[in-house]
Amino acid sequence: MKIAIDGMGGDNAPKAVVEGVILALKEYDGIEYYITGKAEEIEEELKKYKYDEKLVKVIDAREVISPNEHPVMALKRKKDSSICKALKLVKDKECDAVISGGSTGAFLAGCTLLVGRIKGVERPALAPIMPGKNGSFMIVDAGANVDSKPSYLVQFAHMGKIYYQEVLGKKNPSVGLVNIGAEEEKGNELTKAAHKLLKEEENLNFVGNVEPRETSSGDVNVLVCDGFVGNTLLKMYEGVAKTLLSMIKEEILSSGIKSKIGAALLGPVFKKLKIKFDYKEYGGAPFLGVEGICIKAHGSSDSKAFKNAIRQTKTFYDNEVLEKIKQELKNNI
Amino acid sequence: MKIAIDGMGGDNAPKAVVEGVILALKEYDGIEYYITGKAEEIEEELKKYKYDEKLVKVIDAREVISPNEHPVMALKRKKDSSICKALKLVKDKECDAVISGGSTGAFLAGCTLLVGRIKGVERPALAPIMPGKNGSFMIVDAGANVDSKPSYLVQFAHMGKIYYQEVLGKKNPSVGLVNIGAEEEKGNELTKAAHKLLKEEENLNFVGNVEPRETSSGDVNVLVCDGFVGNTLLKMYEGVAKTLLSMIKEEILSSGIKSKIGAALLGPVFKKLKIKFDYKEYGGAPFLGVEGICIKAHGSSDSKAFKNAIRQTKTFYDNEVLEKIKQELKNNI
Repeated sequence: MKIAIDGMGGDNAPKAVVEGVILALKEYDGIEYYITGKAEEIEEELKKYKYDEKLVKVIDAREVISPNEHPVMALKRKKDSSICKALKLVKDKECDAVISGGSTGAFLAGCTLLVGRIKGVERPALAPIMPGKNGSFMIVDAGANVDSKPSYLVQFAHMGKIYYQEVLGKKNPSVGLVNIGAEEEKGNELTKAAHKLLKEEENLNFVGNVEPRETSSGDVNVLVCDGFVGNTLLKMYEGVAKTLLSMIKEEILSSGIKSKIGAALLGPVFKKLKIKFDYKEYGGAPFLGVEGICIKAHGSSDSKAFKNAIRQTKTFYDNEVLEKIKQELKNNI
Repeated sequence: MKIAIDGMGGDNAPKAVVEGVILALKEYDGIEYYITGKAEEIEEELKKYKYDEKLVKVIDAREVISPNEHPVMALKRKKDSSICKALKLVKDKECDAVISGGSTGAFLAGCTLLVGRIKGVERPALAPIMPGKNGSFMIVDAGANVDSKPSYLVQFAHMGKIYYQEVLGKKNPSVGLVNIGAEEEKGNELTKAAHKLLKEEENLNFVGNVEPRETSSGDVNVLVCDGFVGNTLLKMYEGVAKTLLSMIKEEILSSGIKSKIGAALLGPVFKKLKIKFDYKEYGGAPFLGVEGICIKAHGSSDSKAFKNAIRQTKTFYDNEVLEKIKQELKNNI
C-alpha cells in the first residue's frame, strides 16, 4: 500500500514524522511512503538513517498550515501546503491513505473537500480510541460536527461499529449514546431524538444511554454523540488525568522523605498507568465517512505515535474497512 | 435564620441529615432547623443526641420522591413528600432557605414551581463549586437547562459572579465560556452567540473561552455553559478522578511488595488529594435564579457534607446574596 504522510504536521515535525516512518519501515512490510513538506528539511532528517530508499518519496511542498489559521481559508490559499499535497495524493488515487498530525480543522476540512464524502454520509466524524479502565472505547464524533442532527448519530454508530469490529477485533461491539441520565427520556432534544432512532436500528448492538462518568470504564465500546460533547469528553479525559497526576507529583515534592521514597517505590505502577493512558499507543483518530483512509495523528505525536498511526492505517487497509463501512451504510441507511 | 431540610433526601437519609444538623448546631449559632420527613424515623435519629430541642422542629411528611421518578409528575402526585414540604416552608416564608440531598430533578423543578423565579430570570441554574488545581471553580449551569439560549448564559454569568464573590470571597471573579477552542469564532451556534453577548457585558470580568481540559486548573472562577455540557464536565471530573485512583489502587494490589510499601508511605499524600477532590468540603450546589436560598446537596452526602451545606446556606443568608443577585440582574439585564 501507499501512504501519504504530512511531513510538517505536528509539534515535532518533520523530525518525529521521519523517525516514525523509519520505525515503521523496520516493522511493517509492503508500505511505500510519500512524505510531503519542505524537501530539504525532510531529506536532512532522512539522511540520518539507513533504509530502503525506494520505499520513501519526498514530495516538496513549500507552505505549512498552522493550527491557528482558519481551516477552509488556509486550505484555499495554501495549495502548496504539506496537508494539501498529502490529501491530493489520495484524491488522485496515487496513495491509499493519508496521515497528518497538523491542524485538525484544516485536515478534516481537506478530507471532506478533496477526498470527498462516501455517498449517503451526511457528516464524516472524527473517531479517536481512548484507553478505558476495562477496555478501549471509541468516541464518534470527537469534534468534527457541532450542532449535529439525530440522523448523524445513527450513521456515526454504524461507522464506529465497523471500525471497532475490524480494527480492534471485537465482533458486534456495544454502542452507547452519551447522555446526561441513563433513562431514555433524559437529555436534550438531540439525545432524546437520537435515542429513539438508535433503538430502532436492527443491526446495532445498542445498549442505551451512557452517562459521562461511566464512559471512562470502557464497558461500552462505541460512544456516539455530537462533536461538541465528544470533544468535551476527550479533552476532559486528557485534562483531568493530567491534572490529577501533576497534583500527585506536586504533593509528593512538597512532602517529606517518606513520601519521596514511597513515590520511588511506586515508580513502576505510575509508569504502567502512564502507558495505559498514553494516546500514542493508539495511533491516530480515523476520520470516518470519507472516501479514503484518513488518519488524524495527535498534534503532539512523537515518532512512536506516528509509527502506531501507520500500523493503524495498515490495519484499516488490510481489513478493507472502507469497503465494509460503505456496505454497512448501504445496508442500513 | 430558619432552614428547611429534606430529612429523607440522599442515600444516607435520614441518619446523615440528622447527624449533619447536630454537627451544625454545635458549630453555628442563630439557626433553627425544620426537618421534613417520616417523623418517627427522624425522631429516632434525633434521640441519639443531646441538643437544644427548641432549635429543631420535625415536620411530618409521609411520602418520599425517589431519583428514578419523573420529577414534575412526582411533585404533583406526592404533595406529602419530604421535598414538597420543605419547599413549601420557603414558599410560605416560614423558612429562609431549603436544603435537599434528594432527587435533583424533583428538587429543581420544585424550586422553580413552588419558590418561583426571580423576576427577569429566564432560567435558574444549578451551580456547583468544584476543587481545581489552583483554586475552586464554579460551573453554571450544571444540568438544570439543556438546549440553552445564548441569553441564559449571560444571566448565568451575572448570578455566578455574585455568588462566587460573596460566598468564596473573591472580588470581581473571572468568568469564562466553556468552549471547544480558545478562539472567539470556535464552537457551536450557542457558544458563538454567547461569546458575542458576554464580550459586550460591561460589568463582567469576562476572560473568553475556556477549553474543557483547562477547566480543572481552576484558573477561571466562574464557567458558564449549557446544562448538558456542564453536567458532562461535572460527571467527567468525578468519573475520571475516580477511575484513575481506582486504577492506581488495582495496580498497587496486583504489584509486588515494593509497590505496597510505596503506597503505604504515600498514604498521607493520597489522603490530602482525596480531601482536595472531596465535594463534601464544598457543601452543596446553589440553585441560582429562584426567589429563595435553595441548596442541592450531593445524593451521596454524609453528615459532614450536610453540615457544610448548612454552613454554605448560612453564608448565603448572612451575606445577603439573594438580594445582591437581584440587584446585579436589575443593573445588567
